[in-house]
Amino acid sequence: MLRDDIQERLDNVSKPKGSLGFLEEIAMKIALIQGKIIPELPRRKAVFVFAGDHGIVEENVSAYPKDVTPEMVENFLHGGAAINVFSRHTGSDVYVVDAGVDHDFSATPGLIGKKVGYGSHNFAKGPAMSEEEAVLCIRYGRELADQAVHDGVELAAIGDMGIGNTATATAVIAALGCDLDSIVDIGTMIPPEQLVHKKEVIKKALQLHRPFADPMDVLRKVGSYCIGEMAGFVLGFTAAKRPVVIDGYPTSAGAFLACRIDSSVTDYLFAGHRSKVKGHDVVLREMGLRPILDLEMRLGEGTGAVLSFSIIEAAIKMMREMATFDSAGITSGNEQ
Amino acid sequence: MLRDDIQERLDNVSKPKGSLGFLEEIAMKIALIQGKIIPELPRRKAVFVFAGDHGIVEENVSAYPKDVTPEMVENFLHGGAAINVFSRHTGSDVYVVDAGVDHDFSATPGLIGKKVGYGSHNFAKGPAMSEEEAVLCIRYGRELADQAVHDGVELAAIGDMGIGNTATATAVIAALGCDLDSIVDIGTMIPPEQLVHKKEVIKKALQLHRPFADPMDVLRKVGSYCIGEMAGFVLGFTAAKRPVVIDGYPTSAGAFLACRIDSSVTDYLFAGHRSKVKGHDVVLREMGLRPILDLEMRLGEGTGAVLSFSIIEAAIKMMREMATFDSAGITSGNEQ
Repeated sequence: MLRDDIQERLDNVSKPKGSLGFLEEIAMKIALIQGKIIPELPRRKAVFVFAGDHGIVEENVSAYPKDVTPEMVENFLHGGAAINVFSRHTGSDVYVVDAGVDHDFSATPGLIGKKVGYGSHNFAKGPAMSEEEAVLCIRYGRELADQAVHDGVELAAIGDMGIGNTATATAVIAALGCDLDSIVDIGTMIPPEQLVHKKEVIKKALQLHRPFADPMDVLRKVGSYCIGEMAGFVLGFTAAKRPVVIDGYPTSAGAFLACRIDSSVTDYLFAGHRSKVKGHDVVLREMGLRPILDLEMRLGEGTGAVLSFSIIEAAIKMMREMATFDSAGITSGNEQ
Repeated sequence: MLRDDIQERLDNVSKPKGSLGFLEEIAMKIALIQGKIIPELPRRKAVFVFAGDHGIVEENVSAYPKDVTPEMVENFLHGGAAINVFSRHTGSDVYVVDAGVDHDFSATPGLIGKKVGYGSHNFAKGPAMSEEEAVLCIRYGRELADQAVHDGVELAAIGDMGIGNTATATAVIAALGCDLDSIVDIGTMIPPEQLVHKKEVIKKALQLHRPFADPMDVLRKVGSYCIGEMAGFVLGFTAAKRPVVIDGYPTSAGAFLACRIDSSVTDYLFAGHRSKVKGHDVVLREMGLRPILDLEMRLGEGTGAVLSFSIIEAAIKMMREMATFDSAGITSGNEQ
């Protein structure tokens, strides 16, 4: 069996059994995804940053005004954001996806127009989007994944940018079955009284929309264009048997939605990091994913995911480049 | 004040305040070490792997026979070990330091002869080394650091290789004041009964050697040539105001010894990772260091330290390459 053959390789490279810990699990997962004992390095790596506005910001749940969403998109396109810096650092391309920003961008290299609408609706007052829009989000995400596969991207990260995305992710994750108290948290810094208000807004919105028929119903009622497109991307890229690295909380909401549509996607998912947002850990556990990095980051954009590329590649190189006990002529200790 | 100016830069690059978490602390520490608001990238990075034998292996405390120490040194020199793979991955040079292997190596590029003796003595029966040898270890370590500074190494990691090093590190850390029960653990895999035996051996050895007059007395009685040279390296490299990244448990014992000789070294130390060895966390806390990576690795060689280089460099690039709120024309939210 392939798994046994991979394990044999892991145990035969010149280190005590299991001594590279989680790195060995990463190598195993990549090797299984590729269907090879000795996995290949990804020839192209890219991060897709999904940008969109969220009607829920009308309810005063965020630290920043909505204008920041298009301003940050411009920052991504000019290469000045953290995600640009970390992507250059790890040799990755950055694509910014306009999933639903309330702004018209001029055509710019690196910007992919997949706009479903000018911001999702305020889910405190009604559904975030129509049924058609929910279906379109998933389709657009799948199209992006197909294009990425066609372009030779072999390791992808998803990131997100959108004022109001933490509140939206919280509603989606709660609607998918997680306890609201254990996940509600600030995204960027807001005062404690605003956090209490944010929780109240989400709680009432969930009451308004329950019951949720299925994951698509969750997306339609309390989701966002970003979360929908991220879910579609995860479904499409993993269907092509390629690994997707998720970033922080909102991207995990997108991945979680994808998991509820098709549970096999988790075989192809990596959690780039554990964000400082409280609920992140909860949703990662739900998906059975262990974060690679744990740096108390809470920025989003795909930053934690892209930084983890370096660790994933190290795990692959361990399998490819290390001498075996035999080839190096080393006594293998207890294992003999 | 420099710290305030660095903090201002951290808060002005285009991300919510504090949202890059521990990465911001890393950037702050590097900037303070360099004495610059915007830190420079290290032009040369290197790992020094200190290899030595330990007389304590006579007491049956290790999973591997002592022959493995020189075999692994050869593996390092041929580029087939994990530390070689990860160093190539992060663009770092590997130097193997023969601090006290019970073997004569032929001259090989990358091997630095700083042999104090053919293995430290069995500290279960008497002092691990003479007073002169303890002094020589520190001197050799400082010489290595001076040479590294001269050669332009601007970011250094220390690693170690030597059968019996976990047992020795445990004795040193306990002798420096940590509770034995909270630190004794396996290094590589040994059966539970052998771990009980290992603890008993160390406990009796500590009884034999107490009281310890000072850190040099600890080194002499229960230390090793590796730990002494690592302490000397840390003292020398940090005296030149350059950062040292420590790896797992034995390297932390070396750094801890250096801290007890000169407490200011911690301002220049980074903990590359939290190893799976139980006592590692204890000694990192004693030094006030937070690990960058947490991958349940327990290999040593400097592997965790070198992998963390990628994160340290990302933190520096954040300061150097990110646009500021002003330069990118972004509304800065709550902070306005």
